[in-house]
Amino acid sequence: MTYCLGIITAQGLVLASDSRTNAGYDQVNICRKMHLFVKPGERCFVVLTSGSLSVSQSVLTLLHQDFDAGAGLAEAVTFYDAARVVGACVRKVAKIDREALEEDDYKFNINVILGGQIAGSPHDLYMIYPQGNPLRATEESPFLQIGETKYGRPILDRGIQYRQTTLEQAAKFSMISFDSTMRSNVTVGPPIDMVMYTKDDLKIKQFRRFKDKDPDLIAIHGQWEQALRRAIIELPPIRFDEIESKFP
Amino acid sequence: MTYCLGIITAQGLVLASDSRTNAGYDQVNICRKMHLFVKPGERCFVVLTSGSLSVSQSVLTLLHQDFDAGAGLAEAVTFYDAARVVGACVRKVAKIDREALEEDDYKFNINVILGGQIAGSPHDLYMIYPQGNPLRATEESPFLQIGETKYGRPILDRGIQYRQTTLEQAAKFSMISFDSTMRSNVTVGPPIDMVMYTKDDLKIKQFRRFKDKDPDLIAIHGQWEQALRRAIIELPPIRFDEIESKFP
Repeated sequence: MTYCLGIITAQGLVLASDSRTNAGYDQVNICRKMHLFVKPGERCFVVLTSGSLSVSQSVLTLLHQDFDAGAGLAEAVTFYDAARVVGACVRKVAKIDREALEEDDYKFNINVILGGQIAGSPHDLYMIYPQGNPLRATEESPFLQIGETKYGRPILDRGIQYRQTTLEQAAKFSMISFDSTMRSNVTVGPPIDMVMYTKDDLKIKQFRRFKDKDPDLIAIHGQWEQALRRAIIELPPIRFDEIESKFP
Repeated sequence: MTYCLGIITAQGLVLASDSRTNAGYDQVNICRKMHLFVKPGERCFVVLTSGSLSVSQSVLTLLHQDFDAGAGLAEAVTFYDAARVVGACVRKVAKIDREALEEDDYKFNINVILGGQIAGSPHDLYMIYPQGNPLRATEESPFLQIGETKYGRPILDRGIQYRQTTLEQAAKFSMISFDSTMRSNVTVGPPIDMVMYTKDDLKIKQFRRFKDKDPDLIAIHGQWEQALRRAIIELPPIRFDEIESKFP
């Protein structure tokens, strides 16, 4: 399983991914799911992938080939174009692999998060579906998740606000969202890669890899659990009706 | 969709269920999913159901029929027997309905949570699968969920401890778990029914129905969001490596 997350706020982006990949329960490996495509000062993309590792690798190979040749993500004029470039790669691989996969009852399965900025345009955040079509994050829905999305969602629903949330806060919310997911699903696991992108940087200045048993990760986990328990204690008590006959 | 939750601690039980049922997006109704079987001073069962409403109703009809006739849950000697009584009812209904459902590609789908106590034995908590087999909550896994379980799980994973958590705290954790689930999935909705059962009561003394826009529910929701945002702010800042070349 995988968990990847992109958050967009007025100040910039936070993107994060786990690194666990498994084919069955007895074949668990570490695999980076965060990939950078950067021409400093001109354009900067962070790509996160979930789904079949084979399909993801093919899509990334094609994206890199084109980028290195000055095509694809390297020449997209708008961020929407860039999302379409990724979608086109997904469709290209679908044309090659989909039929053979489905013949053996495998799904053609890849989801992509694309965040970043092209000089002269605002920073932006998209998701690309297995069918290749793009979805854009908005001020009202300022985060996108792929993979094992549910455990880590409530904290984001409660906390992330496009205008108010600072990038530093968004990074902390991401960390808690990952911590919640890893705690509830063992197939999501470290290292956690995280990029904090301040708008108009047009390069990656702030990257962090949290390894297994990373002391910062452990400290945040412990402090968060304590804060939650304290918050529960401080809630007003639940009032109950004391009479059984009230049960409808 | 449905969300039902049972928590067992050294002090007793908290059981809660939502009340939204839908067959497609345009047929949403309110339906109670919490059912009581009580002989005060002798035995007390709370039954929560998720899955097909038709199947759940059939199982409950059979359970009530037997109970009223002094059989089934009314004469189970141990709590394990009681879980087996529920499982037998599930299997009885499966025998009647399963084939016809599967012919039209519907799943035979019911999950049950059974909590309560029989005089002379400890309070107990079980889940019964669609196949009729029972699973017991333990000190290490002191809560059971059915239905839309993921959104509301992290807060329980972090908070519920069989020996330390008081019943009042367990009720608050339940409330937050439901609030998280309702926020992220609109097909889980109020009224929320909640029972707090103190061990050896052998009747239901504390019941609460939280209706839509219940002022207590709104107050808890607001206070919780504020507490979370405060807790995020109080976390130490995430430290990033400032150099792009560190990206592996």
